[in-house]
Amino acid sequence: MEAAISAGDVKALRERTGAGMMDCKKALQEVEGDIDKAVELLRVRGQAQAAKRGGRVAAEGVIESYVHATGKIGVLVEVNCETDFVARNDDFKEFARDVALHIAAAAPEFVSEDEVPDERRARELRIFEQQAEDKPENVRPKIAEGKLRKWLEEVVLLKQEHVNRDKHGGQTIEDLRAAAAARTGENVVIRRFARFQVGEDQ
Amino acid sequence: MEAAISAGDVKALRERTGAGMMDCKKALQEVEGDIDKAVELLRVRGQAQAAKRGGRVAAEGVIESYVHATGKIGVLVEVNCETDFVARNDDFKEFARDVALHIAAAAPEFVSEDEVPDERRARELRIFEQQAEDKPENVRPKIAEGKLRKWLEEVVLLKQEHVNRDKHGGQTIEDLRAAAAARTGENVVIRRFARFQVGEDQ
Repeated sequence: MEAAISAGDVKALRERTGAGMMDCKKALQEVEGDIDKAVELLRVRGQAQAAKRGGRVAAEGVIESYVHATGKIGVLVEVNCETDFVARNDDFKEFARDVALHIAAAAPEFVSEDEVPDERRARELRIFEQQAEDKPENVRPKIAEGKLRKWLEEVVLLKQEHVNRDKHGGQTIEDLRAAAAARTGENVVIRRFARFQVGEDQ
Repeated sequence: MEAAISAGDVKALRERTGAGMMDCKKALQEVEGDIDKAVELLRVRGQAQAAKRGGRVAAEGVIESYVHATGKIGVLVEVNCETDFVARNDDFKEFARDVALHIAAAAPEFVSEDEVPDERRARELRIFEQQAEDKPENVRPKIAEGKLRKWLEEVVLLKQEHVNRDKHGGQTIEDLRAAAAARTGENVVIRRFARFQVGEDQ
């Protein structure tokens, strides 16, 4: 008996492998709908390309880079929008440049609070609780929470104030992102960044 | 009784925390030489900075970036050498630029073969073995090994031929790296890279 294969699974498999629709459907039937197994099967048969890092293109936007004049610090950032029209817009591109420059100077670790791993958050909180041990017991959790909030403002890009206060008057990166979204009329997302400093530990 | 603390551990702790030598030594004694625990202890006491990504600077070199004219593909690469004198050398900088441009076009996944995770290598080999199942049994391992070698040449930066054959005549990135090392008289290392393409899966 043939397994029922959804059109959505066929589409997902096509996007991952570049294989033809019928090949994808047949492969899915043979492995009873398991997409990972179907990818392997298609590759064994030579019907799929080896998975390349970054295959499917899902959004519009720009890649912006900034390398400090010394050549010792560099940043790469991806900022997404919804249409190529906005991606070519000077205002949008300037936002991306402002973000890249800020990252070089402020060295955030995460784009958003969601990206902070649970263990990391727990470790920081534990340290802040221990730092508050000389305070009355009833206020300790509040003090530790306050310190955690402050730490997040230091390491999370969207919560940081832009380093150029003359230009941006103390607005956070999230403020600037929201303003860019309002001006362009599209959802604007800072998707990811890389920041390299010569010789730093990885 | 006090634990014996080595000068090397004190140095390592100082580099990770920025704390004073005596503070580091005392902390190590209190936690019987466990460096991770000592880091926490120093932080609790406010004697250490929160660990920032990228602290210690261990090498010279440059960060080079390249963004394709479309703004849809960007690369950041760190190339190390031994002295700042060579890091400022035009020849060295040109090598870094050539590597960045190549990565944008060729989309490698790893700098060197060492970086390929064992599971990934095993998975590729399994697929190549299955692809060779119609061949005589005694030649199958050899065929699969050959395919694995070819795959490594596709995904490992140092094994790739530079995409600009007019300029580099089919030399691999490793050939170009070795030539740059010979010309500068220093060890030249491509340490890491990031390559972003707008909208790709991560």
